[in-house]
Amino acid sequence: MPTVPTAMPKTNRQIRLAARPVGLPDDSSWQLTEEPVGTPGDGEVLVRTLSLSLDPAMRGWMNDARSYIPPVGIGEVMRAAGVGRVVASGDERFAEGAYVSGAVGVQEYAVLRGDDLLPVDLDVAPPARWLGALGMSGMTAYFGLLDVGAPKEGDVVVVSGAAGATGSLVGQIAKLKGCKVISIAGGAEKCRWLVDELGFDAAIDYKSDDLKAALKEHAPKGVDVYFDNVGGEMLDTVLARLARGARVVICGAISQYNATEAVQGPKNYLQLLVARARMEGFVVFDYANRFREAAKELAGWIAEGKLVAREDIVDGGVDAFPATLNKLFGGENTGKLILRLAD
Amino acid sequence: MPTVPTAMPKTNRQIRLAARPVGLPDDSSWQLTEEPVGTPGDGEVLVRTLSLSLDPAMRGWMNDARSYIPPVGIGEVMRAAGVGRVVASGDERFAEGAYVSGAVGVQEYAVLRGDDLLPVDLDVAPPARWLGALGMSGMTAYFGLLDVGAPKEGDVVVVSGAAGATGSLVGQIAKLKGCKVISIAGGAEKCRWLVDELGFDAAIDYKSDDLKAALKEHAPKGVDVYFDNVGGEMLDTVLARLARGARVVICGAISQYNATEAVQGPKNYLQLLVARARMEGFVVFDYANRFREAAKELAGWIAEGKLVAREDIVDGGVDAFPATLNKLFGGENTGKLILRLAD
Repeated sequence: MPTVPTAMPKTNRQIRLAARPVGLPDDSSWQLTEEPVGTPGDGEVLVRTLSLSLDPAMRGWMNDARSYIPPVGIGEVMRAAGVGRVVASGDERFAEGAYVSGAVGVQEYAVLRGDDLLPVDLDVAPPARWLGALGMSGMTAYFGLLDVGAPKEGDVVVVSGAAGATGSLVGQIAKLKGCKVISIAGGAEKCRWLVDELGFDAAIDYKSDDLKAALKEHAPKGVDVYFDNVGGEMLDTVLARLARGARVVICGAISQYNATEAVQGPKNYLQLLVARARMEGFVVFDYANRFREAAKELAGWIAEGKLVAREDIVDGGVDAFPATLNKLFGGENTGKLILRLAD
Repeated sequence: MPTVPTAMPKTNRQIRLAARPVGLPDDSSWQLTEEPVGTPGDGEVLVRTLSLSLDPAMRGWMNDARSYIPPVGIGEVMRAAGVGRVVASGDERFAEGAYVSGAVGVQEYAVLRGDDLLPVDLDVAPPARWLGALGMSGMTAYFGLLDVGAPKEGDVVVVSGAAGATGSLVGQIAKLKGCKVISIAGGAEKCRWLVDELGFDAAIDYKSDDLKAALKEHAPKGVDVYFDNVGGEMLDTVLARLARGARVVICGAISQYNATEAVQGPKNYLQLLVARARMEGFVVFDYANRFREAAKELAGWIAEGKLVAREDIVDGGVDAFPATLNKLFGGENTGKLILRLAD
């Protein structure tokens, strides 16, 4: 029988998808609901959400389109990864008080199957880091760069969205592998951070610099690996500077997620032919059986001071989710964006 | 000293690039010139052009753009591969009367370096075939499909421009490797040929069929390899049906070569992410050191009746080049398009 604490919480507040947005999500996209906290059955666990991961990919999950994962249904609790504390357990692997991560959704409490949860060790890192550098952002950077981008020592690696959760790790891992890292981000402060704190070789401010000219300056012999989080014009500009045999890693396209017209396809895609290059997409979940190995290596780099993991933590209730999510699309965050519901 | 025959030809007619076309090349793009036939120096060979290879890639060579090869300069003889007979030789490897292939250009006579020529054995195949299935079209199909597309037995392979010189070979090689071949071509007669004569599993007539629906019907589990000669809307439609781990081979984009606006980028490129797929370009010349091996295998398949090599031969002088080239862009040819200047 599940263990049930004597003072069970009663009410669970949730953010549900109310309507599919056209363009940037707004108030009409979301609905705040309350319902009684659920009770875990055998093999299930009741989790109190502590921190939620906010990710550009969430925008895609809101669309009714063929993707690597089904869309969130209208009226469903918004999908979100999170870290939480076990409040009641019907799975002997997760005792009351244990910390776990999983797809908790944007809600204060979630009943989840134990099979779908991972243990979280707060002695290694705080909850937010388990969602960032040691969570899906870290896994995405690690496998996307190393397995798909396949950088070699001395390669020129360009990363867009470089001050974001994934991009900032991609650049740092590339530096650890002996690459020259040219980062692209929006704003002087982010660019300063990328060069001064993360040690990237260059940071191009796409809001004020001439990207084409800056790439020519910093990558005179071309770009060997482009890790693209942005898409749009930026992708086209980098495609025009690929080195022979280059690898373009398609991780995301944040510039296109809120487009109200069709996605802008890369009109320079024939440069793949000129450069004998490839453009390749990936989905991080395919690497699940190697997550443990990657997290161990990333945690080691952090402990040794070789990798800076930065979180942008917003404190608030689930009702703060809509506005916090939109920070991503305004390019307002640096590092991993987290909504912290409780300590 | 070069051997010089007693009755040397005197006049060489040539087609030169007069102006860079916007859109489809027309009369203003070309200039017919005459000049005295050249004399080969040491290490050089004078070649009488017999057959010229007409290729969609020629349109790209006319543009002043970064590519895998420099553009043809204004006033220069138009670049073209061809087969010819040695008329006078300053290279002992090529005797008078020998047959050779090389970049002869659109002209009746060419002085070329022996190092840049390959011997042609007319006992194995006639001149046109040395430009088609045993020439660059064959090499492009062979290496593009096998090395870049990497088909496995049982894979679903889609090829566009399937009735063309390269496409018709791609589909046949895929069949030889045990794949299901779905071809896309324009017109009922081409489609009949592809299914009835070449044995493809399906032929979709993009001019009259609903490509999206037909792909769904013939590739219900998705497309494993797409060999793209066309680009544009067709590329987008196939991208939406990629199977997981698919390979998209970018060979060309004939739909875009005469576009007067920017190239249409594939707006469905994020399907590469959904399908964990890659899109890769290549340039056939990179495989030069394996051409001999590939030509031998292709010639063997032809001799055994396993591979049909079809040429669309136009007889005419160099002045017939402009109109013959444009047959490619009107989709008028089936098989390898050849301009035969002399027997």
